Amino acid sequence: MADQYAYSGDDKRPTEIPAIRWEEPPEGPVLVLLDQTRLPAEEVELVCTDAPALVEAIRSLAVRGAPLLGIAGAYGVALAAVRGFDVEEAATALASARPTAVNLAVGVRRAQAAHEAALAKDGDIRQAAAAALAAARQLHQEDAEASARMAEHGLALLDELLPGGGHRILTHCNTGSLVSGGEGTAFAVALAAHRASRLRRLWVDETRPLLQGARLTAYEAARSGMAYTLLTDNAAGSLFAAGEVDAVLIGADRITADGSVANKVGSYPLAVLARYHHVPFIVVAPVTTVDPDTPDGASIEVEQRAGHEVTEFVAPQVPVTGAEAGGGIPVAPLGTQAYNPAFDVTPPELVTAIVTEEGVVSPVTAEALAQVCARSRRAAAG
Amino acid sequence: MADQYAYSGDDKRPTEIPAIRWEEPPEGPVLVLLDQTRLPAEEVELVCTDAPALVEAIRSLAVRGAPLLGIAGAYGVALAAVRGFDVEEAATALASARPTAVNLAVGVRRAQAAHEAALAKDGDIRQAAAAALAAARQLHQEDAEASARMAEHGLALLDELLPGGGHRILTHCNTGSLVSGGEGTAFAVALAAHRASRLRRLWVDETRPLLQGARLTAYEAARSGMAYTLLTDNAAGSLFAAGEVDAVLIGADRITADGSVANKVGSYPLAVLARYHHVPFIVVAPVTTVDPDTPDGASIEVEQRAGHEVTEFVAPQVPVTGAEAGGGIPVAPLGTQAYNPAFDVTPPELVTAIVTEEGVVSPVTAEALAQVCARSRRAAAG
Repeated sequence: MADQYAYSGDDKRPTEIPAIRWEEPPEGPVLVLLDQTRLPAEEVELVCTDAPALVEAIRSLAVRGAPLLGIAGAYGVALAAVRGFDVEEAATALASARPTAVNLAVGVRRAQAAHEAALAKDGDIRQAAAAALAAARQLHQEDAEASARMAEHGLALLDELLPGGGHRILTHCNTGSLVSGGEGTAFAVALAAHRASRLRRLWVDETRPLLQGARLTAYEAARSGMAYTLLTDNAAGSLFAAGEVDAVLIGADRITADGSVANKVGSYPLAVLARYHHVPFIVVAPVTTVDPDTPDGASIEVEQRAGHEVTEFVAPQVPVTGAEAGGGIPVAPLGTQAYNPAFDVTPPELVTAIVTEEGVVSPVTAEALAQVCARSRRAAAG
Repeated sequence: MADQYAYSGDDKRPTEIPAIRWEEPPEGPVLVLLDQTRLPAEEVELVCTDAPALVEAIRSLAVRGAPLLGIAGAYGVALAAVRGFDVEEAATALASARPTAVNLAVGVRRAQAAHEAALAKDGDIRQAAAAALAAARQLHQEDAEASARMAEHGLALLDELLPGGGHRILTHCNTGSLVSGGEGTAFAVALAAHRASRLRRLWVDETRPLLQGARLTAYEAARSGMAYTLLTDNAAGSLFAAGEVDAVLIGADRITADGSVANKVGSYPLAVLARYHHVPFIVVAPVTTVDPDTPDGASIEVEQRAGHEVTEFVAPQVPVTGAEAGGGIPVAPLGTQAYNPAFDVTPPELVTAIVTEEGVVSPVTAEALAQVCARSRRAAAG
């Protein structure tokens, strides 16, 4: 089950609540999540004491973002093990909480495998539970380290491309600590620039239709004390034309073997604008994002999402009910059809560089990308 | 004063209510407006029996759009004259109802001048009132005719650029009969293509932050029976990449002497995408939009609008109250700063053609634009 801790007070400044943490109060171990469906209106924590509560949190998008889901899944297995529940049953439920989230299933399996191996080795349930928790913690730690290395490589690249500092960076969607065990991908690079006093401004695309930029990236920028400004996605053109953008930094959902980048819809128009204005377009993503089995961008099938995300508005702090259509406020005539692709694909020729935890790929070619992936595999094997 | 007629019924299909009409029921002449603040949720007509009611309708944006405001202002003067109110007082109030709307003041002055001239000629109050009404009707008629000629020139251009028909047209913001005495500018061209069975699809940009595309253009497309699809502004890139856009058609707020086009924010990114994908980018606007006194795009000062249009959501059918900030639902952290330019500027080299009621300017050069304007002045003088 899950309890709620509300942190809202008179001071409306966002605080430093982590997206996920393992705690061991006297009542027994718990997994504490920052409920992302309530942001930015309220900072509410969900306290999960068992796997079903975590499954529900995953389903309701209280916890989201590929790397963070993997970490949550691993902790969920550890929670079941530590509290003496059926680990296999918990793992099955967790892995299928969001069927398309590959990282979730991978994280679950990693903790489950550690649990099974320990159990097979000396048959001690406590030792096995400890092994599952250690695996979850290691995944969490690895993800945080990958973020830190991406931030380091990314900042070095920015300083090389834009000598003199005072970077004005445009970003899209949400790529910070709300989706990561660490500080994220593109956002982590901007944060590193901020900490090094080399970020002049973070331009935050609101990112329609679900407004992850307005709701989540603006929240992360505010709580990090960054100079940031929100804009409608279509106002980015004016910023480029006014010479107000030094670089674009985005994350990636998937990178194909040729270096095509699938990311939140609205990324590709930014790449075209960046090219037209001779501004670097930089993708920041861990090596696990590279999918060598998909040859190119044309091979990616673009998921079309429900039209009501466009034709209706749902207030962030109001949980979506199961009502007719989206249950939101209509902003278009009834019966309006909407084109609502989940992501778009940017071809490698428009990408200045791909920053990974293993280093920077630039220019983006299939060979250079394969080399970075091989380096990652050697590091894992070593 | 103003009465309200609601047209909502069980049938949710939009009807053919004109944006403005003069009526003469037995109780006396009235000006009837379609209340645009209630669209697309409800079709409600405002019946104005005097100038103060019209001033209120203009202030509340129940009636909006440059050409339509001019027509409304002229009818407002006629209404005061016909009903025996002080014409000068009404004209002053109407002309200043929205100070930056140049067309409004021009329309008001035109009816007022006709009234004064008739009064000076034979001193008959009834004749003078009839002259004011005739001037308003003429302005209305001229605007409708300009729309029709733009539609004709625009469709001929489309057929020339895209032989074979089956046009898939992308448009931005609202440019139809809700802002015009006729069928509008860019929308009128799409409508002409639809009537000629040569429109395969109208792609409608939602047009953040005020959603004029979702609220108004989708409404106009629905009531015209067009095949239309709504999209978030940032999804246009995916449509171009998929080869789903044959031409972009937009209106213009102002065109400078060199052919730079100021229009609703989000127009410029479409122009860059259109260029990158070798798709025609066509601007449709009456000759009165050309401002020969502004030499180029760099000379235009871009109006920055209030940040709460971006950081808050206001439901279309709920009138904005005078509450703190925008009175809407926050979608970003409190205190978030927003960059919210009202329009952007597209340079002439990205514009394939400018379609006016006097003909098509293509390629767009200062000389060609000056020639079309001169043709218009000769026609007016002739």
